[in-house]
Amino acid sequence: MQTTDSPTLELAKDLISRPSVTPEDAGCQDLMMSQLAPLGFAEEKLRFGDVDNLWARKGKDSPVLAFAGHTDVVPTGPEKNWDHSPFDPVVEDGYLWGRGAADMKGSLAAFVTACERFIAAYPDHRGSIALLITSDEEGPALDGTVKVVKALEDRNEKIDWCLIGEPSSTKVVGDVIKTGRRGSLHGHLTVHGVQGHVAYPHLAENPVHSVAPALDALANEFWDGGNDFFPPTTFQITRVEAGTGSNVIPGECLVHFNFRYCTESTAESLEERVVAILDRHNLKYDLTWQLSGRPFLTDKGALVSATQAAISKVTGRDTELSTSGGTSDGRFIAPTGAQVVELGPINATIHKVNECVSIDDLDTLSKIYEQILIELLA
Amino acid sequence: MQTTDSPTLELAKDLISRPSVTPEDAGCQDLMMSQLAPLGFAEEKLRFGDVDNLWARKGKDSPVLAFAGHTDVVPTGPEKNWDHSPFDPVVEDGYLWGRGAADMKGSLAAFVTACERFIAAYPDHRGSIALLITSDEEGPALDGTVKVVKALEDRNEKIDWCLIGEPSSTKVVGDVIKTGRRGSLHGHLTVHGVQGHVAYPHLAENPVHSVAPALDALANEFWDGGNDFFPPTTFQITRVEAGTGSNVIPGECLVHFNFRYCTESTAESLEERVVAILDRHNLKYDLTWQLSGRPFLTDKGALVSATQAAISKVTGRDTELSTSGGTSDGRFIAPTGAQVVELGPINATIHKVNECVSIDDLDTLSKIYEQILIELLA
Ligand SMILES: [Zn+2]
Ligand SMILES: [Zn+2]
Repeated sequence: MQTTDSPTLELAKDLISRPSVTPEDAGCQDLMMSQLAPLGFAEEKLRFGDVDNLWARKGKDSPVLAFAGHTDVVPTGPEKNWDHSPFDPVVEDGYLWGRGAADMKGSLAAFVTACERFIAAYPDHRGSIALLITSDEEGPALDGTVKVVKALEDRNEKIDWCLIGEPSSTKVVGDVIKTGRRGSLHGHLTVHGVQGHVAYPHLAENPVHSVAPALDALANEFWDGGNDFFPPTTFQITRVEAGTGSNVIPGECLVHFNFRYCTESTAESLEERVVAILDRHNLKYDLTWQLSGRPFLTDKGALVSATQAAISKVTGRDTELSTSGGTSDGRFIAPTGAQVVELGPINATIHKVNECVSIDDLDTLSKIYEQILIELLA
Repeated sequence: MQTTDSPTLELAKDLISRPSVTPEDAGCQDLMMSQLAPLGFAEEKLRFGDVDNLWARKGKDSPVLAFAGHTDVVPTGPEKNWDHSPFDPVVEDGYLWGRGAADMKGSLAAFVTACERFIAAYPDHRGSIALLITSDEEGPALDGTVKVVKALEDRNEKIDWCLIGEPSSTKVVGDVIKTGRRGSLHGHLTVHGVQGHVAYPHLAENPVHSVAPALDALANEFWDGGNDFFPPTTFQITRVEAGTGSNVIPGECLVHFNFRYCTESTAESLEERVVAILDRHNLKYDLTWQLSGRPFLTDKGALVSATQAAISKVTGRDTELSTSGGTSDGRFIAPTGAQVVELGPINATIHKVNECVSIDDLDTLSKIYEQILIELLA
């Protein structure tokens, strides 16, 4: 039985008690900085719009290992659905409960304590350690990591290895790490018909009738088969809307859809194929595209090897390399040429009520992060 | 060139100047009654909810010829789109302009003046003349004609012939009369899926994807071929709605649709066939039905013959019997066993900006109504 909080648990609790719903940081970055500054980290605050970002770096040399993450959390929903108040961290049954416990204030705390122990043991380590922290990962992600990366690129400051603390684990800590992510491509389709009264359908043209077979064709299309690193590309309709009154044939039909796509397809090839399917159905339409992120993949290399080795040494576990799941800020960092790996706690409760993280896992995670520092910078 | 307004034009202008948007009557029924009472019509006001209804009857004997119509009008939309203020009747270029000119205050005025001349010429006519007027035909139609008909049935008061003043004419007055209407059946479908994140489609079930082929099948189904009296049954989707966020697979999809159906199908047969198509597509769904009106048909008989004869005598025209177009209050009157015919002015401008009626047509219409009275009750 643990009688005092570990430093990682203590910092995680402090962070959870700050209600930093996107885009609020609520003082989390200052709190982290108060422990990083004594270790020799130089602080750079980068505020864009209403988003707080932190770039903290110790050392001037290459290679640069950056821990990346976010202080913002998703909304709690009605607090009455929670067993404990979501911003009032509670330790019970071996778990730390609260919004952000798993996504990703636990990881942030583990970053900081891993740095503390590593720097105490290896004061003259090679290269540099950095933290890239934003308060806009869960939101539109327009004024967060993407802008920090741009600022760094503008002055030729380079990240070699980036360890993102997103909750990658599924059953036990370290069982899965993400070494890439699929791309995300949104399409906004407006199918035009001719509005009219249901009593006079020959004077109208129903866009819902004309788009239905095209939607069926899109939903059943085989886009690609995936590859060794990625699952197959998927297509999902996320919104459909048409109609005004109960006796009116709609004049147009809106359809929004999203691709999660792997490196067997490109945004351009998918766009072409959608257009071909729509044209085959003789639709009159407008179509706009929004590319949220291209797919990226970090090949086996120093960072992946160090992460696998660290997990193995700390937990004895073999880890699975995965590219599934939603997008992450890795999509902004990978294009700079950095190797990117995501490793964090178990993701079972993220974005849900009663979000929690095992307090043992927090300490394990901190030890793994410390071991990655040792593998790469000792 | 006409120098003074005809009595029909004068009354039509008075009615248009009263802004009786559904369910408002705005004094129209009182105005009509002020001309009907001196002719011997007994007034019965039937107010249900916020709807004014008028039952005015002259005579106690059978057969009963009722003129039926509505004082309410559809909204004008932005008045700046009108050449003349919509409730400020203007005569220009041989037309009377204003909301309700064609649908159907012109017909109401023609009813009254036809009665005036007929009763002056035939004070001892046989049978009874009645007017059934509501202020809720353009709206939900729940507290209008349907309730007046019920009140009459409850006391065994019977309409033998009903002439509805809806604008039936297409190119010249009297070229088309309606001797029936198709039925109208609404379906409200909710298709159930499993909501989820677009990044994890294997954990979700997209109801838009599953309903698309069923909608295509419904839109392409051959429901029936119509018959000598009715055009074929038509199916139209009037609303479709699904989706909440750009990365969320919707949990359900709403679809509203409407049948305009002829006497070759029944509401029951259509419902069964829709269910069979949905079930063939393995959907999980809820489906509710709303029957707005069953189809009705007035066979050739005294009223149709009298109307054809009157049109021929007044205008020299052969008239076409039609059952096309939207529903009307005839759907409530026909089930009582009454013969129902609709005859009114040209419908080109109804429910539009710059609604108008030819002032010559108004007088022609009044003469036709008068001639119908002569044919049936002189
Ligand atoms: Zn996260
Ligand atoms: Zn009308």
